[in-house]
Amino acid sequence: MKKTVKIILGSVRTGRAGKAIADWVMKKSEEYSNLNFELIDLKDVDLPFLDEPVPARMSNDYVHEHTKQWSKTIQEADAIIIVTPEYNSGYPPVLKNAIDFLYSEWNNMPVGLVGYGGAGGTNCLCQLIEVLNAVDMKVVDQKVTISEIWDAIDENGNVKPEKRQGDILTIFKQLENELCS
Amino acid sequence: MKKTVKIILGSVRTGRAGKAIADWVMKKSEEYSNLNFELIDLKDVDLPFLDEPVPARMSNDYVHEHTKQWSKTIQEADAIIIVTPEYNSGYPPVLKNAIDFLYSEWNNMPVGLVGYGGAGGTNCLCQLIEVLNAVDMKVVDQKVTISEIWDAIDENGNVKPEKRQGDILTIFKQLENELCS
Repeated sequence: MKKTVKIILGSVRTGRAGKAIADWVMKKSEEYSNLNFELIDLKDVDLPFLDEPVPARMSNDYVHEHTKQWSKTIQEADAIIIVTPEYNSGYPPVLKNAIDFLYSEWNNMPVGLVGYGGAGGTNCLCQLIEVLNAVDMKVVDQKVTISEIWDAIDENGNVKPEKRQGDILTIFKQLENELCS
Repeated sequence: MKKTVKIILGSVRTGRAGKAIADWVMKKSEEYSNLNFELIDLKDVDLPFLDEPVPARMSNDYVHEHTKQWSKTIQEADAIIIVTPEYNSGYPPVLKNAIDFLYSEWNNMPVGLVGYGGAGGTNCLCQLIEVLNAVDMKVVDQKVTISEIWDAIDENGNVKPEKRQGDILTIFKQLENELCS
């Protein structure tokens, strides 16, 4: 049975560019038939600021229904791709909050990263990798970073090659390798 | 007229240790009469996830009343102290979100940092300093980090010296020096 990669869209802001980037990742995934791909929009997940009384690292006996549901969503993934904007050299609060809600669910999960922003999203990815290491995820080597985001998408919904570093198909391949190793 | 330092409590979690740490900073401030000190609890500020349509870096013509109010609160400060927990090697979303809401209000503002956590909060401060640099705040050299937070406060509400690195009075002094330079 095919393994499932869930793509987390880490921006919920009005006017976000992230939806177009996530749609592009989904479109590229049609070229890669070894894995199933699903999009998770954190706008739909709609978590509040972390409100569990006990940190997830200490217990996954969650109090809130929204936490149980989010836990189930992540447990049903075999690997993750995070699509994230960079705000002020860091990660968006809505993304970090979704990570902080869980712990054991993330452990040993392979994860690929797609960052974007005016300056490319690399600063954000550097900070995010430290967080993902803290929850014991396995970050694959290949990263995609997209700069000048306001001019990065062409009329067919593709990210222009000159605005992009890294290869999304290589991320898919590296996730598959992690899942089969 | 005395300058005003606003102390931002960066945790809103049920069972947070941050309130005791912020109360200790306020108590220590009574020994330092050159400045006024006020506590800002982000629980009371109660911002939603960032919902302004235009990033603060591009415009401070805010749409939402809660943003205008938060902007006013920060404009009325001459310097800031941030009291922050460390979650998964990073900063709490509620704190980063409050920072992302504004931009020009932070520019050139002196800021002192108090971090705490099981491991001391240093990882969080490293990431937070990059964010504060991105909004052009002036981070003072002295930092206070507090480890083993569950055992760090004595029966009088003081942080035990052996659980603490750095000196809060030196932070007050360095903020005053920045304001007078």
